[in-house]
Amino acid sequence: MTEAAADTPFRAWWRERASAHRSEVTRIPFSQLDGWGFERHGGNLVHTSGKFFTVEGLRIETDDGAEARQPIIHQPEIGVLGILVKEFGGVVYCLMQAKMEPGNLNTVQLSPTVQATRSNYLRVHRGGRTRYLEHFWGADRGSVLVDVLQSEQGVWFWHKHNRNMIVQVDGDVPVHEAFRWVALPELLALLHSDNLVNMDARTVLGCLPRELLPAEGRTGAFAAALRRSYETGSGTAAIRSWLHDVKGRGRWNTRLIPLDKTHGWTRGSDEISADDGSGFRVIAVRVRSVNREVPEWTQPLLAPREEGLAAFLVRRTGDTLRLLVQARYEPGLLDHVELAPTVRTPPVAADEEVPFLKDVLSADPRHIRFDTLLSEEGGRFHHALTRYQVIELPADHPAGAGDHHRWMTVGQLMELVRHGHYLNIEARSLLACLHSLR
Amino acid sequence: MTEAAADTPFRAWWRERASAHRSEVTRIPFSQLDGWGFERHGGNLVHTSGKFFTVEGLRIETDDGAEARQPIIHQPEIGVLGILVKEFGGVVYCLMQAKMEPGNLNTVQLSPTVQATRSNYLRVHRGGRTRYLEHFWGADRGSVLVDVLQSEQGVWFWHKHNRNMIVQVDGDVPVHEAFRWVALPELLALLHSDNLVNMDARTVLGCLPRELLPAEGRTGAFAAALRRSYETGSGTAAIRSWLHDVKGRGRWNTRLIPLDKTHGWTRGSDEISADDGSGFRVIAVRVRSVNREVPEWTQPLLAPREEGLAAFLVRRTGDTLRLLVQARYEPGLLDHVELAPTVRTPPVAADEEVPFLKDVLSADPRHIRFDTLLSEEGGRFHHALTRYQVIELPADHPAGAGDHHRWMTVGQLMELVRHGHYLNIEARSLLACLHSLR
Repeated sequence: MTEAAADTPFRAWWRERASAHRSEVTRIPFSQLDGWGFERHGGNLVHTSGKFFTVEGLRIETDDGAEARQPIIHQPEIGVLGILVKEFGGVVYCLMQAKMEPGNLNTVQLSPTVQATRSNYLRVHRGGRTRYLEHFWGADRGSVLVDVLQSEQGVWFWHKHNRNMIVQVDGDVPVHEAFRWVALPELLALLHSDNLVNMDARTVLGCLPRELLPAEGRTGAFAAALRRSYETGSGTAAIRSWLHDVKGRGRWNTRLIPLDKTHGWTRGSDEISADDGSGFRVIAVRVRSVNREVPEWTQPLLAPREEGLAAFLVRRTGDTLRLLVQARYEPGLLDHVELAPTVRTPPVAADEEVPFLKDVLSADPRHIRFDTLLSEEGGRFHHALTRYQVIELPADHPAGAGDHHRWMTVGQLMELVRHGHYLNIEARSLLACLHSLR
Repeated sequence: MTEAAADTPFRAWWRERASAHRSEVTRIPFSQLDGWGFERHGGNLVHTSGKFFTVEGLRIETDDGAEARQPIIHQPEIGVLGILVKEFGGVVYCLMQAKMEPGNLNTVQLSPTVQATRSNYLRVHRGGRTRYLEHFWGADRGSVLVDVLQSEQGVWFWHKHNRNMIVQVDGDVPVHEAFRWVALPELLALLHSDNLVNMDARTVLGCLPRELLPAEGRTGAFAAALRRSYETGSGTAAIRSWLHDVKGRGRWNTRLIPLDKTHGWTRGSDEISADDGSGFRVIAVRVRSVNREVPEWTQPLLAPREEGLAAFLVRRTGDTLRLLVQARYEPGLLDHVELAPTVRTPPVAADEEVPFLKDVLSADPRHIRFDTLLSEEGGRFHHALTRYQVIELPADHPAGAGDHHRWMTVGQLMELVRHGHYLNIEARSLLACLHSLR
């Protein structure tokens, strides 16, 4: 398909928005941060207002008495990630936003209707400036179709979770120029574009309820097996028992410590980095943009060193597709272990062997059903790119799962994602991607 | 009913077990603890093995920048609380244990089939000494009817949760003398006896699935309205949204700190106590018993100063009973806020006003539907007694609920308790008590 053929009305609007959101993000030394600084006692990186987030230290004690330390982002409050939906002519549309975030590779990405922090919604009835928030918060909100607290990256965030909401409206909604009603089938198709649909939009789409899923389907045996995989939602009790078995075997001793106690990490003038060069760095940036609440600001960001990989291996069993799901430990998760893609790299620990990585890396390109490079939260992470893949194993592939992996249907994941703390953020992203393959 | 008339076979067995479990619990100074001591750096109270639990400090930062500090119990692992059930002649029986715990007022209480720590079940296949654990852990376990991670007291425990399990067996199970099959209706009736059914048994009974509930019912309008309250389980989505609203309004900044940084608390030779005399003390005891794995041991216990109160106000609306449920903050809860009884005292903060307390304390005795003094976990808490009550409000009572309370049916609570982190430990205890009133 040529570029010209792909120039839908959405793409035309998108080009217009990308140029309207002109902005410049430059790295600065920590000393040039405005309102941010390292606390004298403990060295945590904090904002003088006590708001936003802090960068602190995390200590992880493992079972054998060994320990690991790292910086981690701490934001002890719950934000709202909400998509407003409305039916036009029998088709579900989502009100999406072209939103600039400083950590994005390409500055603007397609975001939910609202990404609101607590201070945004606590002022919603006193002239709040977050557009459309009144549909998600307070007595006059619309019809709530989804409302679930979901975790975010447990390797970078301490106990972070946000409220994932889908709210339906019937009445007229004035559409601001940075927003657009996007038909849900088109929105799901946009997941195939690199770095377009942002993490916050993906996690909400990963919580889509069955009744909103577009009915029409793709042709072919893979799509047929995938659609059948949605029909089997029973058996989640056994999955939860297995997850509890995994949790029960571990001793989960993680705690916040002062940032200056993260031995093995060094704070330079413009970055905090691991002495062995692994993982990520903490950096600072200055943002100049024309189109945001605050015209210029500075903030810290967490910058991963490597591109990540999040892949589901899938297999047809009979006529139903099953996914190989991992019970994955991440030190910052509220409950330590959640269901994750078959493979997620970088691994949590530098010396951790990643099961099934070879199967993903050596996959026959003809078996790759989904393959897109997508960005993690640009408000906290700098150029954090993850390759999301769905790879179908050939029928003759050995089927062993191991202690930390288990075969599941899409229907089972959809049943589990109705409650928080079962599916991790990358599993939810991939669930949204699977919705685009039906 | 006279004592003689009440002397069922269960009571005869119980008297026999109580006398078999002769034991003596005496307070000792901290210096006489074996294997336990205060860490030189930070002053946490720990066991030299690194196992069991630790007593550490907790810092709670409130929204307005104020802070509170207190000691808290930290045990970063998941135990199993499991009841084995079996049908005899169409009636469900539970295998219950007469178990001594050092903090119990009366030493022996009726406990689940297993209360196992992680180290218990990790050795289950190498000659483990926890009876019946093989029914709950490992490949050969029975048919799992309930398996859910549930929180425990968030004012005394840091992020504690245990696996609540009900497992059904068909085959023969040899019954050790400290154990007894108790018919479920009889077991529920035993909840009306002071300090008999222990906390661990109650929380598991609070997770009873619908299909195990005894069918036969009490007579009277209250029981009829109660039974109808079980039939309405829909509407939990709106309840969860409300719970998320409450969570969303707060900023939840709690963290473990060294015990010697709990300003306002003083460590004496035999207790750690708040300088204002409030809350609880940390003490140490020596236990001499004839019938436990270890014949003699010492350990710390947390000793509340006051008897607690946990009460549901209920009301008949039409012909259905509804409970006034509280969204309650407790600093040690994994997710900060869970559903709790209408009233729970002592309150979390000393200066906190307790809504509806007056309605409970001034209730007409004829409106009290349940009233029993029950013990909290005797393995960690010393003489921690809570008065559990269900009080029916008269029809003309003003019905306002306020921001942190909401009317719900029993069916809705049963729907929510299938997943963890919705109902707190006292709400689950009272749910078990309600099962005894049908």
